[in-house]
Amino acid sequence: MKAVVFRNPESRVEIADVELAGPKAGEVRVKIAAAGVCHSDLHVKRGEWTAPAPMVMGHEGSGVVTELGEGVTSLAVGDHVVLSWVPPCGECRYCLQGHEARCQKVATVVAPQGVLFDGTSRLSLGEEPIHHYLGVSSFAEEVVVPASGAIKVRDDAPLDVIAVVGCAVATGVGAVLNTAAVEPGATVAVIGCGGVGLNVVQGARLAGAERIIAVDVVPEKTRMALQFGATDRIDVTEGRDAVEALFELIPDGVDYAFDAIGRTSTTEQAIRMLGLGGAAVIVGLPPTGARASFEPLVLAEADQRILGSNYGSVRPSIDIPALVDRYMDGQLKLDPLISGRRPLDAAAEALDDLEGGGVLRTLLIPDAN
Amino acid sequence: MKAVVFRNPESRVEIADVELAGPKAGEVRVKIAAAGVCHSDLHVKRGEWTAPAPMVMGHEGSGVVTELGEGVTSLAVGDHVVLSWVPPCGECRYCLQGHEARCQKVATVVAPQGVLFDGTSRLSLGEEPIHHYLGVSSFAEEVVVPASGAIKVRDDAPLDVIAVVGCAVATGVGAVLNTAAVEPGATVAVIGCGGVGLNVVQGARLAGAERIIAVDVVPEKTRMALQFGATDRIDVTEGRDAVEALFELIPDGVDYAFDAIGRTSTTEQAIRMLGLGGAAVIVGLPPTGARASFEPLVLAEADQRILGSNYGSVRPSIDIPALVDRYMDGQLKLDPLISGRRPLDAAAEALDDLEGGGVLRTLLIPDAN
Repeated sequence: MKAVVFRNPESRVEIADVELAGPKAGEVRVKIAAAGVCHSDLHVKRGEWTAPAPMVMGHEGSGVVTELGEGVTSLAVGDHVVLSWVPPCGECRYCLQGHEARCQKVATVVAPQGVLFDGTSRLSLGEEPIHHYLGVSSFAEEVVVPASGAIKVRDDAPLDVIAVVGCAVATGVGAVLNTAAVEPGATVAVIGCGGVGLNVVQGARLAGAERIIAVDVVPEKTRMALQFGATDRIDVTEGRDAVEALFELIPDGVDYAFDAIGRTSTTEQAIRMLGLGGAAVIVGLPPTGARASFEPLVLAEADQRILGSNYGSVRPSIDIPALVDRYMDGQLKLDPLISGRRPLDAAAEALDDLEGGGVLRTLLIPDAN
Repeated sequence: MKAVVFRNPESRVEIADVELAGPKAGEVRVKIAAAGVCHSDLHVKRGEWTAPAPMVMGHEGSGVVTELGEGVTSLAVGDHVVLSWVPPCGECRYCLQGHEARCQKVATVVAPQGVLFDGTSRLSLGEEPIHHYLGVSSFAEEVVVPASGAIKVRDDAPLDVIAVVGCAVATGVGAVLNTAAVEPGATVAVIGCGGVGLNVVQGARLAGAERIIAVDVVPEKTRMALQFGATDRIDVTEGRDAVEALFELIPDGVDYAFDAIGRTSTTEQAIRMLGLGGAAVIVGLPPTGARASFEPLVLAEADQRILGSNYGSVRPSIDIPALVDRYMDGQLKLDPLISGRRPLDAAAEALDDLEGGGVLRTLLIPDAN
């Protein structure tokens, strides 16, 4: 099958004819309908994150189940699914406590080793074994994933839209509803209004936040944030300090500040924007090794918090179908998040476009070839 | 009345004959039975914190109500009280949400300005106005405080013991039960086993933590922590890395790590001790301006949190009487926390002793003169 292979930051990603073995026990095969190109893919491509290579890229996608491995009873051939890049093992203490986004087996085996639960890969290129990426590898015509990573959703939802629920939407909305548990009436700042940030904005709207302040260096993006529910904009133009501008709007500081960018500077800005009892939530992911600093005395005296949010602290099997329902009910905007749809062959160009900025989500559509 | 006055870090604290005006509306006068000498007092004395001076020192204490200001109905003359260094205003949005430790009026008026709610002080020395410290100023024969800062407790509890509930115990136990909300079965590391740290240890025991690892550079202190409920000790001797030692005991890292010291190095150690979904809790307070750093990528990927804990996130009127009850029921150890009792005149020496180390809590007893 055709798939997009990443080898190292020096070479361009390539389309190759990758062999995909059938699903083992507890796994399923899914024909990919659409796969989103995310900033995390860009981090991998640039070598900013340690990721097992060579790999088939992609960790966001949707499709239709075509084959069941032994013992799979939760899904049927023909089911429409959204892929989750945390396929919860269901057995570790974190899964058992309902914190599936922290699944220990995913964090220690699947993600870092680029394999499925049994420690092996279903992907190969001739003699060469190829790694999975976050248990998904959706830049391909087909995938084999753990059954817990293929989340059944309603059949009437368009697969070439709801693919984005699997990462951008779950991450952004989940950070608001799960990680931070924003209350009605709260004040919220969102730094970075790209694919994830706009979902933080609409998550804050769903949570009933009273003020939602969109912060970005690109005025187009903060304008778009208004459509997603932001009540105020801060355009960070040359010489303008985002934190000062925030305190002009909300003199006491905000209850929640989301860093949807993930630079040291934006993380520190989010922390400085907080009022009494406020929480800074780290949603955007920086390169490995980057450090941010804070004043422990201020954090303690003001009873503040810094919250890491992995995958929006979601429980995939519960949250993903619910997010799809909210889209179908008109409560969540997804269509404006999708900048374009391109064939799988255009993966390298889609990554270049993302690097250039101005693009939210490109969906790769294998059938468009 | 006799009181301990701090002017600046250069001069020694002095005993002076300070004038105390009577309670205004909403305030009460309390005759002090005992006042604890805390590390925070040392921070003030050393000039490491910005604090309004000259002031009457002290923010922990117990006593008996002797006079009621206009309109006070929640207390009666003769009531035994423990003083709270957050006297909640009851009107700001934080108080109304049940987050009294974040009280906005305390954080913006009482604490930084060294006054009571009406913006004035009841303390003077001849013509010179003297500030309150954190709305308490307990290193004195008497105090006038907001009624909400004098917490009625049962009459049969010894005042020259339960004074420590007002700061050390509320801060340490509150950080576990309120700020972190440690669950039964959790793993907990406590860095620093002094007056606050030992209370974190016994808070973790009350919460039902399965492993409680006491960390200190003084072996005597970690041994004492075992009596308070710690299950393991790490003595940080020359050349031994506390974080490595912790991972030898708990290979996955801990669910909660409390920094009860408040140095940049201990804060960063607490963060590095965390496992998946873990929370580092900042209880010990560093000097103004000190910064600690963390890796946002790790915090986000592991769904971890850094929690500031101001005054154990307590609701004084609920939590302080409950802590006194737990002491009387034998669930909380307080007596071993008290290193000695000295007259008010010995305040300077008590601060020197604290600086020298090896001392937990000295109680100043005005009547001992």
